[in-house]
Amino acid sequence: MSQFMDVHHGMKGITADQLREAHRADLALEKEEGVHFEKAWADPRSGTVYCLSEAPSAEAVQRVHERAGHRADEIHPVPFTV
Amino acid sequence: MSQFMDVHHGMKGITADQLREAHRADLALEKEEGVHFEKAWADPRSGTVYCLSEAPSAEAVQRVHERAGHRADEIHPVPFTV
Repeated sequence: MSQFMDVHHGMKGITADQLREAHRADLALEKEEGVHFEKAWADPRSGTVYCLSEAPSAEAVQRVHERAGHRADEIHPVPFTV
Repeated sequence: MSQFMDVHHGMKGITADQLREAHRADLALEKEEGVHFEKAWADPRSGTVYCLSEAPSAEAVQRVHERAGHRADEIHPVPFTV
């Protein structure tokens, strides 16, 4: 299992409720792919959302996001953390 | 105080030690600007570093990073978190 930071662009105007709802959709599917979405942060002004996950691969992260209806634009493995 | 996610590009090949050292440099300066750097994640392959902070403004975040010698390329306020 590795940690990943994925990024969604084009989410201008996203609300707290929409972020919560998107995260809930990920959580409902994540087990089937062996992924766990730990946290997400949204900047509604620039339309950027960051999701931190623990997953077997970037592909597994993307599969959950795709099935939940919000494909990620970037997925970065982040092996180093402080 | 608000939460910010800032992004550094061009950090290809960054090591765990370098990330730790950069974070330590931020922590040594942050109080003077009323900032607290909570966490950072690095992807050495794409050369991307994400820093999560609590700060009075994006400018204060940048001042700490600049004084520590590593200006951020993007600074996003992230008012929504799950």
